Amino acid sequence: MSYPVIRINEGHDRRLRNGSPWLYSNELQIDKAAKALPPGSVVRLASHDGRALALAHFNPHSLIAARILTRNTDGLIDQDFLLRRCRRALELRELLYATPHYRLVHGEADGLPGLVIDRFGDTLVVQLNSAGMDGLAAEIIGALSELLGSVDIHLRKDAPVRLLEGLTQEEEPVAEMSAALSTIENGLSFAIDTAGGQKTGWYFDQRENRAFAASLAKDASVLDLYSYAGGFGLTALASGARELVCVDRSEAALALATASAALQGVEAKMQVRVSDAFAALDELAAEKRRFGLVLADPPPFARSRKDLPQALKAYRKVARGSALLVAPGAFLCLSCCSHNVPEEDFARECYAGIRSAGRSGTLIRSAGAAADHPIHPALPESAYLKFLAYRLD
Amino acid sequence: MSYPVIRINEGHDRRLRNGSPWLYSNELQIDKAAKALPPGSVVRLASHDGRALALAHFNPHSLIAARILTRNTDGLIDQDFLLRRCRRALELRELLYATPHYRLVHGEADGLPGLVIDRFGDTLVVQLNSAGMDGLAAEIIGALSELLGSVDIHLRKDAPVRLLEGLTQEEEPVAEMSAALSTIENGLSFAIDTAGGQKTGWYFDQRENRAFAASLAKDASVLDLYSYAGGFGLTALASGARELVCVDRSEAALALATASAALQGVEAKMQVRVSDAFAALDELAAEKRRFGLVLADPPPFARSRKDLPQALKAYRKVARGSALLVAPGAFLCLSCCSHNVPEEDFARECYAGIRSAGRSGTLIRSAGAAADHPIHPALPESAYLKFLAYRLD
Repeated sequence: MSYPVIRINEGHDRRLRNGSPWLYSNELQIDKAAKALPPGSVVRLASHDGRALALAHFNPHSLIAARILTRNTDGLIDQDFLLRRCRRALELRELLYATPHYRLVHGEADGLPGLVIDRFGDTLVVQLNSAGMDGLAAEIIGALSELLGSVDIHLRKDAPVRLLEGLTQEEEPVAEMSAALSTIENGLSFAIDTAGGQKTGWYFDQRENRAFAASLAKDASVLDLYSYAGGFGLTALASGARELVCVDRSEAALALATASAALQGVEAKMQVRVSDAFAALDELAAEKRRFGLVLADPPPFARSRKDLPQALKAYRKVARGSALLVAPGAFLCLSCCSHNVPEEDFARECYAGIRSAGRSGTLIRSAGAAADHPIHPALPESAYLKFLAYRLD
Repeated sequence: MSYPVIRINEGHDRRLRNGSPWLYSNELQIDKAAKALPPGSVVRLASHDGRALALAHFNPHSLIAARILTRNTDGLIDQDFLLRRCRRALELRELLYATPHYRLVHGEADGLPGLVIDRFGDTLVVQLNSAGMDGLAAEIIGALSELLGSVDIHLRKDAPVRLLEGLTQEEEPVAEMSAALSTIENGLSFAIDTAGGQKTGWYFDQRENRAFAASLAKDASVLDLYSYAGGFGLTALASGARELVCVDRSEAALALATASAALQGVEAKMQVRVSDAFAALDELAAEKRRFGLVLADPPPFARSRKDLPQALKAYRKVARGSALLVAPGAFLCLSCCSHNVPEEDFARECYAGIRSAGRSGTLIRSAGAAADHPIHPALPESAYLKFLAYRLD
């Protein structure tokens, strides 16, 4: 297959040789012919002196102009290529998890840049987040069917990152979606909404952090802030927590949490509050409530680097308000999913918040995402999730 | 109790207020009277204008001149104080672990600076690593007996860090020690040597990382470099690995691994090599051996900050040599226990080593020590352990 060739500017192929999965537009020789290529075209990247180095998805309209697909420059980017990569990703998940509920493909780290696939048993939710993958939708569906047999495949084209690729951000998913689905995590059933819910409908990345937090919750009363569909709180209830308060601004999210509580037979122990987290923290403080475990997993406060100072203040405020509600000797778990916030900064702000609440404590766990959300070693941004568990004095 | 007062230099109490558990000698007003205090004396720390802020162990001969014990300046540092702190530490471990085998006290992070206690059922191994704790040996034994009833308590005074405190580094432990002990980790029995073995005789800090690595090992042949007593490798065998090669320079360590293999009934699957790790890597490469899981948990290559550049090279070399022996699609787990090596630097060198072996891969776990080795939030050095698990292409 003779893919169009794009040369890398002299001196800019070092990042590629060090393993980077991306090249930026200023690193490439983008001439008129290149500019005219349809976004998402497969190209052959070459050094400035013409040596072929890799095949990539090319997008002249994106800052991330090239996303590396393979270093095999004689390869073909077709359904079979996708099948091989998906099979390799599946092997890892099957080794790690006893039930078929996990992130099956995690973009760059699985060698499939711009592609995210979550598996809920026989239902796959596919996020097409780059022009290249958007153009391969049919081949992706073909590869997944070949790999897994008869499965429902739902495409979602609503991630904001699509706008950076010059794609549309569609509000409604393409395929017809089943409204009432469930998934299994840590042995528990959860109601999910793969069509209207956030992202693919569930966040498997916190699987192991949820299990850890739950291990702290025996006989505790638990506050789950930014609860979304109740993943943290309900896992804690299943581990012997006494009662649970879920707080989220979204009624739809809390309806999922309530449905999951019903599935698990623990409705009587759960209370939901449709509320902004900060408002709920103030109210609960006024009520003089104290909890054995407080969890906060907010949405990304720093959507870009310029948001960082403000985001750090917000994380500190969450930590402070949460710490005020933690009983002596009890636990506080704080999460951050902003890839723009370095772990060190997040930890510093969390402890500053804890101190400003007049509390001290010790850090008993510092962890990232579960292993089905691997990190690309040459793309530190892919280590987006930070989870810190404190025991307060 | 009227403890001697030591004042903090003007402008230097901010770190204390931010939660730091240490003050350095240049931050304190160390006059003649202070210099004359016996190392390890309890003192009352006060701001430059005389406000009492904390009680601390004071050591005029140590760079870490004050180790904070409590912010309650009316407190008493006695057996009852130690008992309360040990009880708080015990509560956390009992919540987390079903069997009484864990790090019971982890120094500063458990509010007991300079004190480390590992628990092996009814046997406790106590490291006295500061002058203050050295002087409280009798009260520590008293508190532990009060807390746990009839237990064997072994004191170890052989940590190199004692020299920085002006203490002796004793080669032989004080108490008579039972030679043949065992511990339980992840449900497996391991032979330990609490007298002659490294540190307290066992490294519980890798408990969860061992369990994770083992989950990757089904049907794999496993290479455990710097195996010490075989913790990683034997856990992998128990999870279904086909065979295990343990490499360590210490015959005594490999004898423990062999004894543990016998306890677990897997001797036939284990081979030991008394060898330097780099020499073993060269030999195994010459033998064209390939493994489904390679593990390397070397001793700290950077014992001080000035060792950092050389240490980074050594970690890269371990990564390179190990990656050469990993089968396609298989796993590589690399650890670093140097608190002087930042996680970011370690990860960068590991991947550089992997790349220089002509390999690429994805990072499926980045983790620290287990929760019985908490981190003091205001003492980032206490996050010493780094564990990275890669799946190589």
